[in-house]
Amino acid sequence: MDRERLYIFDTTLRDGAQTAGIEFSVEDKISIVRLLEDLGVDYIEGGYPGANVVDDAFFSQKRTRRATFTAFGMTKRAGRSAANDPGLQAVIGSAASATCLVAKAWDHQITTALGIGIDENLRNMADSVAASVASGKETMIDCEHFFDGWKSNRDYALRFVKTAIDAGARWVVLCDTNGGTMPSEIADIVRDVQTVAPGDRLGIHAHDDTGQAVANTLSAVLAGVRQIQGTLNGIGERCGNANLVTLIPTLMLKPVFAERFALGLSEAQLADITRISRAFDDRINRGSARQAPYVGASAFATKAGIHASAIAKDVSSYEHVPPETVGNERNIMVSQQAGKSNLLTALSRHGIAIEKDDSRLDKLLRTVKERESRGYSYDGADASFVVLARKVLGTLPDFFTVESYRASVERRHNARGELITMTEAVVKIRVGDDLLMSVAEGNGPVNALDLAMRKDLGRYSEHIEDLELVDFKVRILNGGTGAVTRVLVESRDGTGESWYTMGVSPNLIDASFEALYESLTYKLLKVGAQPLRP
Amino acid sequence: MDRERLYIFDTTLRDGAQTAGIEFSVEDKISIVRLLEDLGVDYIEGGYPGANVVDDAFFSQKRTRRATFTAFGMTKRAGRSAANDPGLQAVIGSAASATCLVAKAWDHQITTALGIGIDENLRNMADSVAASVASGKETMIDCEHFFDGWKSNRDYALRFVKTAIDAGARWVVLCDTNGGTMPSEIADIVRDVQTVAPGDRLGIHAHDDTGQAVANTLSAVLAGVRQIQGTLNGIGERCGNANLVTLIPTLMLKPVFAERFALGLSEAQLADITRISRAFDDRINRGSARQAPYVGASAFATKAGIHASAIAKDVSSYEHVPPETVGNERNIMVSQQAGKSNLLTALSRHGIAIEKDDSRLDKLLRTVKERESRGYSYDGADASFVVLARKVLGTLPDFFTVESYRASVERRHNARGELITMTEAVVKIRVGDDLLMSVAEGNGPVNALDLAMRKDLGRYSEHIEDLELVDFKVRILNGGTGAVTRVLVESRDGTGESWYTMGVSPNLIDASFEALYESLTYKLLKVGAQPLRP
Repeated sequence: MDRERLYIFDTTLRDGAQTAGIEFSVEDKISIVRLLEDLGVDYIEGGYPGANVVDDAFFSQKRTRRATFTAFGMTKRAGRSAANDPGLQAVIGSAASATCLVAKAWDHQITTALGIGIDENLRNMADSVAASVASGKETMIDCEHFFDGWKSNRDYALRFVKTAIDAGARWVVLCDTNGGTMPSEIADIVRDVQTVAPGDRLGIHAHDDTGQAVANTLSAVLAGVRQIQGTLNGIGERCGNANLVTLIPTLMLKPVFAERFALGLSEAQLADITRISRAFDDRINRGSARQAPYVGASAFATKAGIHASAIAKDVSSYEHVPPETVGNERNIMVSQQAGKSNLLTALSRHGIAIEKDDSRLDKLLRTVKERESRGYSYDGADASFVVLARKVLGTLPDFFTVESYRASVERRHNARGELITMTEAVVKIRVGDDLLMSVAEGNGPVNALDLAMRKDLGRYSEHIEDLELVDFKVRILNGGTGAVTRVLVESRDGTGESWYTMGVSPNLIDASFEALYESLTYKLLKVGAQPLRP
Repeated sequence: MDRERLYIFDTTLRDGAQTAGIEFSVEDKISIVRLLEDLGVDYIEGGYPGANVVDDAFFSQKRTRRATFTAFGMTKRAGRSAANDPGLQAVIGSAASATCLVAKAWDHQITTALGIGIDENLRNMADSVAASVASGKETMIDCEHFFDGWKSNRDYALRFVKTAIDAGARWVVLCDTNGGTMPSEIADIVRDVQTVAPGDRLGIHAHDDTGQAVANTLSAVLAGVRQIQGTLNGIGERCGNANLVTLIPTLMLKPVFAERFALGLSEAQLADITRISRAFDDRINRGSARQAPYVGASAFATKAGIHASAIAKDVSSYEHVPPETVGNERNIMVSQQAGKSNLLTALSRHGIAIEKDDSRLDKLLRTVKERESRGYSYDGADASFVVLARKVLGTLPDFFTVESYRASVERRHNARGELITMTEAVVKIRVGDDLLMSVAEGNGPVNALDLAMRKDLGRYSEHIEDLELVDFKVRILNGGTGAVTRVLVESRDGTGESWYTMGVSPNLIDASFEALYESLTYKLLKVGAQPLRP
């Protein structure tokens, strides 16, 4: 059966750069292009040559291997020819193989913001398309405010599309610039546009201002468009652009789409999408969204409870697609109602092999339940689970023990009458027969303890050099008689792997210390450190 | 024009509790109910009585004022009567006014996971509905896996709905349990269901596994359902539930919906939704999503560039709804005017009267913005806002000052070789001309500081006797150069009122102290304590 081809147009490096707090360097752009080519998108819009020095440098040479390297720009201004418009010439003269030129399609905007007539606007657009086509580049028109424009003046909006096609544009992209259009409206308007242009010349560019960028995009595809614009992880101005990392799996895995359409990605590339999504977050220095569709750490996580036994019997119970198709994994969390089978799954995920009828398994289950009743929650603390499991199973090496510690915080006025705070921690650690004592100052008691403990771990010191504390969270639990503090610590090392450990105690400092201690222990396990007395 | 009524059913406290890493205490639930009632939802599903001690305690009394207090549970098991099913009886016997009972509607699941016949499953469901109705409770059926069930066996799925209605269920809720159904499929199936039940007896329960929980919900509404289930900020198992904070503004502001439907919320409640969303994040100790539709800090932010001048000319250029309708604000060229009116609203909410053109208002606005840039967030810490405002406005009495403090924690082995932890705090407080020194032990440094500070407040001691620390939360913020700690403290007094204060510092103890100090100050303000030198 012949399926129609859908084209993926990535605008992470252009519209994505409008995200608050994001600014790409040339190196960032080069590295993100690599991720996008691993993924297999058709077009990569690399930026806006002529707008800033980064984009000028980036467009000085071809940056893609397979994807069509695309430059964004504005159509020419009123009152000058295409040949004499420096903005348009910077785009046409760049190393890109394609251009995506933006023009306004909303009559009200043209007269208000541009202050020109709507027919003049059409001529500017058509001349710009013709100049780009004449330069040998594949040419696209982004119709800004298209859907609002259609509602305001349908005739003009349709005339705009037809003029662009007639001028030689390969694609005319319908933009929901404000992001406020509903999927049902998108479908109606896209169908209407096909009275003047075929669907395989139309694209969709959606924003997430009502949480429906993905749905709007899919609605446009079902109504006829064949090019999809979006960004990695949905970054973009305001609430973001359509998220390609969500759209691509839906288009490839859901029968409604997969039976009718083909993308340029292979199944192997689809199975790489979780890695790509997370690598992109690392590049822009963001934590990955746990709840992200398909690729989030929780996307295939089931908390024990009424669903746990069902999923053990039949994975289709609570999984809409197999996690491995997108390179993610099932995550049945070890929690309150955990049973032996959950435990075995969790253990094997961490490479701990044990037989189903090993009696240590019962002991581990009892220990987990007993600790959870005291406030531990192994859902979110995988590394603490590994340390606990190996302890109960008798396979945790005796790396080091902490004999004692002390932390103090003092706030007072100094000699100049300024309020100052002094924080200090002392830790005594035994490694084999050596008693190591360290003292450190920190910007808080937990930080000071962390620094003191890591200052000298004797023979293990080299193994923990690349360890860093990424996050630290505290909660108070109402555990029956008295309040109990639960501390969750996120650590990371030079490999980029991060892990979570947990401490629980009525005392905040003891709870923090436990989590820090387990993080160090996990790191030593991870690198295979050898204890003196195994 | 008569608009049809849509009912909002919140399941934050039940399905939301399936979120990885989230566990609610009774105090959490009480405080979240308050937020939900501020918002104005119709139903609050508080949990699952009989499933755990927290939910048992929560359902021991009525917890809502206006919303219908709803208990979740399972329909009775096979092989026993409704009267003899302890799970069902715990739900029916709870203090809830309504029940929402779940039963499977997918034939394959019934035979596989439950191992019973599909007709027996219908009888179990009908008997459970009848028992709940007989107990006087409004009764709802959650049809688990409804859409997958319909695709597998349409006749059975429809029979299931009809049986529930005939047995007396007020609402039959169609659940997309795996979250994999597309909006177009939802619409088709919902229309088909209306051949056996009217839309005003049907609800929709969507999950976000393809990023379309919001679109699926809206699609179901357009196709006929009149009850919407979802959660605050879209928390929930895997990728989360339908986000009510996104859905409600769309339903109330977009003509496609607003012209046809009415919700139980007022415009003032809609304008409170940004505050509620952020206060909820604080309660669950999460950072608020900047890109969240309507309520995110970036939702109405425009980065300088091609859009900046356009928005200056005409706000409709890049705003799909006015930000003030949802209590958010435009975030471009910090507009003193816009900020001022927000501030006036907040001040009058706390009974602080000030003229619009009072110059102290500018100073307060600058102070708030400066402090927010350092990590404070007054959305979730009203009492800290009051203290700050009165300080800047010059109406904060000089109750007492803390000259210095010291807190220390020591863990060591005692004479019997047991590991013990000693925690001690010393505080020096000046009240008028008196210097008061107190020392206390606590189960952690913050607790010890709190106890020491409250041990002797001189003439104010009587006013703080009924003050208690209810909750204490810590977050690490990445504030530019170094990590900064934000502490949120919830306090309560004998009147049952609770309030939130916040401290921000690189030092956890300093941040905690600031929050404790402001809580005491707020309490003294609240009872109108008289300082020595006003």
